[in-house]
Amino acid sequence: MLSLDSIRQAEARIRPLVHRTPVITSRTFDEAAGRRVFFKCENFQRAGAFKMRGATNKILSLSGEERARGVVAFSSGNHAQAVALASRDAGVRAVIVMPTDAPRTKMAATKGYGAEVVTYDRQREDREEVARRLSEREGLTVVPPFDDYEVIAGQGTCALELFEDVPDLEALLTPCGGGGLFAGASTAAKALRTGVRCFPVESELSDDTRQSLMKGERVTIPPPATIADGMRTQTPGALTFPVLRRNAEDVLLVSEDEIVEALRFILFRMKILVEPTGAVAAAAALFGKLPRGVGRVGVLLSGGNVDPEALARFVHPSLA
Amino acid sequence: MLSLDSIRQAEARIRPLVHRTPVITSRTFDEAAGRRVFFKCENFQRAGAFKMRGATNKILSLSGEERARGVVAFSSGNHAQAVALASRDAGVRAVIVMPTDAPRTKMAATKGYGAEVVTYDRQREDREEVARRLSEREGLTVVPPFDDYEVIAGQGTCALELFEDVPDLEALLTPCGGGGLFAGASTAAKALRTGVRCFPVESELSDDTRQSLMKGERVTIPPPATIADGMRTQTPGALTFPVLRRNAEDVLLVSEDEIVEALRFILFRMKILVEPTGAVAAAAALFGKLPRGVGRVGVLLSGGNVDPEALARFVHPSLA
Repeated sequence: MLSLDSIRQAEARIRPLVHRTPVITSRTFDEAAGRRVFFKCENFQRAGAFKMRGATNKILSLSGEERARGVVAFSSGNHAQAVALASRDAGVRAVIVMPTDAPRTKMAATKGYGAEVVTYDRQREDREEVARRLSEREGLTVVPPFDDYEVIAGQGTCALELFEDVPDLEALLTPCGGGGLFAGASTAAKALRTGVRCFPVESELSDDTRQSLMKGERVTIPPPATIADGMRTQTPGALTFPVLRRNAEDVLLVSEDEIVEALRFILFRMKILVEPTGAVAAAAALFGKLPRGVGRVGVLLSGGNVDPEALARFVHPSLA
Repeated sequence: MLSLDSIRQAEARIRPLVHRTPVITSRTFDEAAGRRVFFKCENFQRAGAFKMRGATNKILSLSGEERARGVVAFSSGNHAQAVALASRDAGVRAVIVMPTDAPRTKMAATKGYGAEVVTYDRQREDREEVARRLSEREGLTVVPPFDDYEVIAGQGTCALELFEDVPDLEALLTPCGGGGLFAGASTAAKALRTGVRCFPVESELSDDTRQSLMKGERVTIPPPATIADGMRTQTPGALTFPVLRRNAEDVLLVSEDEIVEALRFILFRMKILVEPTGAVAAAAALFGKLPRGVGRVGVLLSGGNVDPEALARFVHPSLA
């Protein structure tokens, strides 16, 4: 189960292996946003994103026997690199299932952390099926990207740190893909500060969580074409959805242009690099998506892994 | 005169108006560089560069009468924005002399800080002459970019902070244009820590300081074509040169490619944005330009102001 206790246990477990990331502020951003914003910088996290927290907590929670057999994950993004690095830290074998057409840089980074990469044909095979087969044949434990209580508790530790550093926040904004980060962070936030208002933020092109909350049940959308690749999930998780229902006051939506504008603002004015998904919650603050009267806001900058080609396009579209 | 005392006085004077910037470390950088590096992040400074320190100290050191008349500076870069913002802070009129073909974004930023911009034709007029005329006609005090003891003492405050945070550094690396940053920072460093080894770093294309130190007198080079626009000065300053002779163990040189590589490393691995000049000292650490046996190194990341077009070219050259 998910609780402040399980998040505190996760925090104690992963502390030696993750960075306590800084909370930064920017007068320029505050002036533009019209409120006081506190950025939790998970782009500075090991492997470049908050995913390191959940992966580490999951792997350190395995039994000795499970660890001896190893783990498997399917991802071509930050979760892959996090599972690879967390496994190396723990001395555990990791197999990562990626599509044959995954970006070379991401494959190289995952292998660089010592993981084995198994590719599959995106057109002809189902990645979960491939991972399940591997899991059964070789006894590997699956490390899910979000729908797992140990993973969710791990992600929640970033809110624990944020509220320790800035106890009097009135609201918390997180990007929302499968909902793991929001579920963990909002659970910690609400336990630490009564009445704090929690908002998951999605791209307009990837509003499965918003649709699901409006309908009262998990809705599956077609593969979304958003540049925020961390939110290309098509439906909230079975475990995260009830937490979203309980803790989300509203789902905020931002456009693709607003995401790129926020990324550029953070890069050129604040001098730090976030990936598009990492800019989503900041975009909601910057472009007035919050209800009136919310003063001090915590914003999760979830990650900073961007390909050079993609970054060149974001910063100077006419070169693309 | 320049001394630890004058730098401490500058520190007390400017403290309310500049950021105490963080010192950060990166395991990834250390592994690549083969030594322990401590980055002083002046890219997070107000107006985006260490120049804010010197400009603020100079303006706060003026008499009441001088302040009432105002200041003038010639620059199209970070010094312009620093003088503009420092003047606004102090309620002082600022006139900035820029070439007619200066980048629009820099002109806009300077005007955005409330300064008056006077343009001149780079082909037909001399900018120092234009500034001197303005100074005489309107009684404005010139704020020089480096060759001024108040400016140099202001720049030195960043080393004061760095050695407070990390007292046991063995070496200090700074980029070197006119020498103001190196003169101030090395004076503070040597006063605070006996035997610390100080190295100014230049682009191979802009080695006026190296040539001058070898010859024992100030050498003037043709306008250098380096991408590090903060080092396009053609000769060391009259005031900075004697300090360079006293404090510089050696001048380290880096290539243009090494500067871009360092910028990309800092951006994609450490997730922070520096401009080419800001990456010069880091490039020297990354590409083994230091003598053997130097362990703990302080590196000044001097600034983070980059145009989007330029950044797109640096991060993905084939798009240019």
